[in-house]
Amino acid sequence: MAVLLSTLATEIVIPVAAVIGIVFSLVQWFIVSRVKVTPERHAPPAGPNSNKNGFNDYLIEEEEGLHDQNVVAKCAEIQNAISEGATSFLFTEYQYVGVFMVVFAILIFLFLGSVEGFSTKSQPCTYDAQRTCKPALATAVFSTVAFVLGGVTSILSGFLGMKIATYANARTTLEARKGVGKAFIVAFRSGAVMGFLLAANGLLVLYITINVFKVYYGDDWEGLFESITGYGLGGSAMALFGRVGGGIYTKAADVGADLVGKVERNIPEDDPRNPAVIADNVGDNVGDIAGMGSDLFGSYAESSCAALVVASISSFGINHEFTSMLYPLLISSMGILICLITTLFATDFFEIKAVKEIEPALKKQLIISTVLMTVGIAIISWIALPSSFTIYNFGVQKVVKNWQLFLCVAVGLWAGLIIGFVTEYYTSNAYSPVQDVADSCRTGAATNVIFGLALGYKSVIIPIFAIAVSIFVSFSFAAMYGIAVAALGMLSTIATGLAIDAYGPISDNAGGIAEMAGMSHRIRERTDALDAAGNTTAAIGKGFAIGSAALVSLALFGAFVSRAAISTVDVLTPKVFIGLIVGAMLPYWFSAMTMKSVGSAALKMVEEVRRQFNTIPGLMEGTAKPDYATCVKISTDASIKEMIPPGALVILTPLIVGTLFGVETLSGVLAGSLVSGVQVAISASNTGGAWDNAKKYIEAGASEHARTLGPKGSDPHKAAVIGDTIGDPLKDTSGPSLNILIKLMAVESLVFAPFFATHGGLLFKIF
Amino acid sequence: MAVLLSTLATEIVIPVAAVIGIVFSLVQWFIVSRVKVTPERHAPPAGPNSNKNGFNDYLIEEEEGLHDQNVVAKCAEIQNAISEGATSFLFTEYQYVGVFMVVFAILIFLFLGSVEGFSTKSQPCTYDAQRTCKPALATAVFSTVAFVLGGVTSILSGFLGMKIATYANARTTLEARKGVGKAFIVAFRSGAVMGFLLAANGLLVLYITINVFKVYYGDDWEGLFESITGYGLGGSAMALFGRVGGGIYTKAADVGADLVGKVERNIPEDDPRNPAVIADNVGDNVGDIAGMGSDLFGSYAESSCAALVVASISSFGINHEFTSMLYPLLISSMGILICLITTLFATDFFEIKAVKEIEPALKKQLIISTVLMTVGIAIISWIALPSSFTIYNFGVQKVVKNWQLFLCVAVGLWAGLIIGFVTEYYTSNAYSPVQDVADSCRTGAATNVIFGLALGYKSVIIPIFAIAVSIFVSFSFAAMYGIAVAALGMLSTIATGLAIDAYGPISDNAGGIAEMAGMSHRIRERTDALDAAGNTTAAIGKGFAIGSAALVSLALFGAFVSRAAISTVDVLTPKVFIGLIVGAMLPYWFSAMTMKSVGSAALKMVEEVRRQFNTIPGLMEGTAKPDYATCVKISTDASIKEMIPPGALVILTPLIVGTLFGVETLSGVLAGSLVSGVQVAISASNTGGAWDNAKKYIEAGASEHARTLGPKGSDPHKAAVIGDTIGDPLKDTSGPSLNILIKLMAVESLVFAPFFATHGGLLFKIF
Repeated sequence: MAVLLSTLATEIVIPVAAVIGIVFSLVQWFIVSRVKVTPERHAPPAGPNSNKNGFNDYLIEEEEGLHDQNVVAKCAEIQNAISEGATSFLFTEYQYVGVFMVVFAILIFLFLGSVEGFSTKSQPCTYDAQRTCKPALATAVFSTVAFVLGGVTSILSGFLGMKIATYANARTTLEARKGVGKAFIVAFRSGAVMGFLLAANGLLVLYITINVFKVYYGDDWEGLFESITGYGLGGSAMALFGRVGGGIYTKAADVGADLVGKVERNIPEDDPRNPAVIADNVGDNVGDIAGMGSDLFGSYAESSCAALVVASISSFGINHEFTSMLYPLLISSMGILICLITTLFATDFFEIKAVKEIEPALKKQLIISTVLMTVGIAIISWIALPSSFTIYNFGVQKVVKNWQLFLCVAVGLWAGLIIGFVTEYYTSNAYSPVQDVADSCRTGAATNVIFGLALGYKSVIIPIFAIAVSIFVSFSFAAMYGIAVAALGMLSTIATGLAIDAYGPISDNAGGIAEMAGMSHRIRERTDALDAAGNTTAAIGKGFAIGSAALVSLALFGAFVSRAAISTVDVLTPKVFIGLIVGAMLPYWFSAMTMKSVGSAALKMVEEVRRQFNTIPGLMEGTAKPDYATCVKISTDASIKEMIPPGALVILTPLIVGTLFGVETLSGVLAGSLVSGVQVAISASNTGGAWDNAKKYIEAGASEHARTLGPKGSDPHKAAVIGDTIGDPLKDTSGPSLNILIKLMAVESLVFAPFFATHGGLLFKIF
Repeated sequence: MAVLLSTLATEIVIPVAAVIGIVFSLVQWFIVSRVKVTPERHAPPAGPNSNKNGFNDYLIEEEEGLHDQNVVAKCAEIQNAISEGATSFLFTEYQYVGVFMVVFAILIFLFLGSVEGFSTKSQPCTYDAQRTCKPALATAVFSTVAFVLGGVTSILSGFLGMKIATYANARTTLEARKGVGKAFIVAFRSGAVMGFLLAANGLLVLYITINVFKVYYGDDWEGLFESITGYGLGGSAMALFGRVGGGIYTKAADVGADLVGKVERNIPEDDPRNPAVIADNVGDNVGDIAGMGSDLFGSYAESSCAALVVASISSFGINHEFTSMLYPLLISSMGILICLITTLFATDFFEIKAVKEIEPALKKQLIISTVLMTVGIAIISWIALPSSFTIYNFGVQKVVKNWQLFLCVAVGLWAGLIIGFVTEYYTSNAYSPVQDVADSCRTGAATNVIFGLALGYKSVIIPIFAIAVSIFVSFSFAAMYGIAVAALGMLSTIATGLAIDAYGPISDNAGGIAEMAGMSHRIRERTDALDAAGNTTAAIGKGFAIGSAALVSLALFGAFVSRAAISTVDVLTPKVFIGLIVGAMLPYWFSAMTMKSVGSAALKMVEEVRRQFNTIPGLMEGTAKPDYATCVKISTDASIKEMIPPGALVILTPLIVGTLFGVETLSGVLAGSLVSGVQVAISASNTGGAWDNAKKYIEAGASEHARTLGPKGSDPHKAAVIGDTIGDPLKDTSGPSLNILIKLMAVESLVFAPFFATHGGLLFKIF
């Protein structure tokens, strides 16, 4: 039964969509680049770009300080410092990452090659003994290559994201002189550059890799897509360093800067006199941008790989229906086009005229992309799938209809939206949860912390139900393939998700630059408003990242179980149960490490900042310049050093458990860490986000209630600042890093599954 | 193959051991009662009891204020107020509990009776269709009776514990005038009264119930021991109210008192001017004593029931070997005798001469009881078990040797000791973890909280490995029966565990009374030293409670699965997996509720305390008395009201899930909440304990390092007080309540298993 979309059309559609995404992101970048950060000698900045959206007449806000060329020069200087710091950190990180990649690539080759003793002879296929498949050695070689490709793509994604963000931050500040709407658009466009580049790039590399590998593998699709899983592992392994290293970097600098600056010296956030201020701004870029970018890229790569490897032994794979086989990539291609249209709603169709419109505009992005994408998925499911096909489900064949698979993808997509909204409800200061937390600051920091923790715990309820429903629906309809495409559904609007996510740190940086450049209070107010919305979207992004991570991990877990040829994972066997309980412990172990790391690194930063304030004469008075570079170096060194133990925990656990205890225990560990980690991650992110916005709520004083708690410097405000500082490592280091924990362990197990199945469980074999 | 211990001997040994325990506790109580709290007119207190231990000559400490009869009168007055407050709270609680018990008893009867449509005809046995067993209606009736008995025993245990504690607190204060050693012994003896009474009582009631039920059931042991599970459910259901209600009570009062007293008014802890001070002291008794007592009684009852129900279908049960069948009760009987000997080491064989000996003395109790008990278990296993027997393991028979079962019990026992030591390491201020947390107070409350949370997360690692090893060993040797006896092993030294656990709140109260009675600084120092050791033992007790809860829940889970006739709980089915992830979420939902409850109740308390300070003239000056009763009432009302939602969550979840989604999903929920809840509980308890002791470390200023952080009122101390306040609900409400969550859901599922297996899963049946 042929599908509507021919193989040739598929071969064309996917790369074309990817290229459109890349071109679109370049166009956005070009528009952003027209904001000049070099002082102009002749005329005040005006002309074509000031009228870009054609709605200028409605902008009620006054333009401010447009002609002060000193400010422009200062912004440019600060931007350079941030960009240099970020680049230098990433390059230092990449040196370590490079060594790791080489070692790990060798490990992959050796482990997988050893499965059949490095034999070069073809073997009968696992699922169809009649046919001949390529040798395990080929899988070893190609998995290794795919791993390297995934890693490099991830690095590229993170690096480009960082470059774009540091390119955009000062431009956002400068546009804020013209009004909040202008500033918003610059920040948002820059986020879009990153989102589209990343989504399109990931798709394109994966597509090309599949086609190149196919030249060797030919009809052995089983081997082909098993090798492709290396791509997911590569992407995720890099994300580990991006998230953990970047997370430690950003929060060491942030907490360190705040503890001395805000608490001891009583100077405002982002004050240029604070020696750690540049490190703090660098951190936003390496942690929230590069880290988040590589995390979501990892999720995307892994869910695609999980779907492909499961599909390779379905009726598509066996009958070699290329279009249906590449259904996951077609969904992503459609996603790029849908997100492109969605972006226009924020940048061209409507315009932000007031502060209170920012959050709704970002929220509309989510809704529009989800609604349009639902139609998109329906179309793809209709043209790319046969009306009925079979899926391999742990030993039994399962018949699936195309509309059922559509529902699987759609349920993931909508679960993502629900998670986004719940996260917004619990972390935005427009709603009662955060306002209650702010209110509890009246009785001090202790009640603030108690209420904040309770809020985080509570905020897991609905997301977990949303995830559970998606799992149930997609699992029931299409087993593990259903889960994998549900994850893809949640990630199909990744370009928009990343755009609104990257918007946050860019705005945060823009505010920092405004403060450091000594721009007026009104401009700072505008960037603060952008930043407050950014906090919420950052929380949404994190909810989204963890939700998709949960589905992806489950899909990978399912693929692992299939590949390791386990038919049941029975909780009622001791091997599995101990895996389950130890797995559920891992997120705690991991969080203990990352939080302690941030704490220790922050204390080092505190010492340095104190030292500078005490030894550099005139620093507090603003007559002398602090030594920013030393603080940047402290953050860099500390984060590189501190990311090794948590990284080792994640990387080594599956290898040790699989080798010593075997695949059953490893299954338990994966399931345990998944169900426990997702809770810890959601609650940590939301608690942190709520504290941050409770503080901003008091600072902004936008309502009668908020004013009774303020102003800045009041006792409730001080209590709120303490909560905010505690939340920093929770929301930006330990919480989001847990995504990586659960995903990376799963994909690593999947890649090494043949080895564990053949040689694993040594301990039980000995005794 | 006959066992060494005859049936007659078993029938004698168990009740005799229970009676010995009760007599011993009465003797201890009599010794404590000789400390008089009525002022004596004739002579200063001296004579026989001052020389009780015969080591008086070595007591270097000076006696202080022995002749001040006013102090005695004041202590008596305060003691009365505390005792009245506690009694009134418990009676109010029991009214609600009474209603709940009646409703729930009816529910049990209806659900279980409906399994075979309330038929009175005998049925073929489930596991041996050749024989005839009693009808399901009998199980319904007897389960209901057992439920009520369990509930009443639990209430009695909690109530007696509270009475003893409030009887002992002022006596400890008065003895503190004679020296720290004297005070320690009074507090410890009182703890022992509670420990032995509870352990012996629980054993005796269970033993009598079994014998009475046997009159009806005769040879139908399967039905007999299924009905007995109601006893565990009753015990645990009461523990829910004890732990949650008591936990909210104690922390609402404590946090409320601290927030106004220590933070706003700058008056010391337990200052008699603080209107919430009596409520705070009442809270220690209803939360930490009555709550903990009913919690551990619940664990004891449940693990016995789990072991019995599993054993009833083993070769013991089928061949009606009464001695072997009652192996779990024999272990407990031996435990009482061993603990009796252990207690003498603290009260009679050695004597505390200095503050620094307190903690080691309590620690020695754990070690001695564990070492002796290992021998005790070996003896019981040798005389009460056949050398080889078979166990029913999810459909297959498994042969077990008696030495293997000995190892199962022993591994549980020793895992308990390891958990105790790890908890001590992480919560005692004698070791570096707490000292590091104290040190982090230098940079403020935020770093204190970050380090404290990281400490709690880290502290789960070893306990989880200890639990995992016990599970693996006992599961491998004797399947679910092994797990159940491992839990019993951990609980076999319950009398000692409870004694050192109850010692804590008694000392805490003694300190409060000393402060309120205006006793000298030196006496307060002595009670503070007792209290600091008590904080650590309280944390150990909590570690112990959660460790045993984990094993007990797993055993109950296993029994449930057997009874519901499920042979595998496969994570790879959607029904189970959604149960698993939702189950793992429940501890968060539950914690959010309990923490928010404490927060809200504390805020109400704060308002009342502030009102009194503002409206009662002369209160701050100490010339007017505060209105203690109103604060007691606020705590009482708030805790009763606030315990309903979390209670409902725990009680209704298994009923709803079992009825609507069926036994597979319920299995997932139980496994998920178990593996997730144990982590949250351990980390919450230890974080809270560490913060409390970090504060005490700074206050005591016992080392060079500690003195650089203090004194009271310094900035680091203020930061430590914030941590302590945050830790209060974590360590005394939400953390320990989670034990109940995981145990109660499991035992409830077990009791209702026949109903769920017959009528459950409505939702899937409809669609």
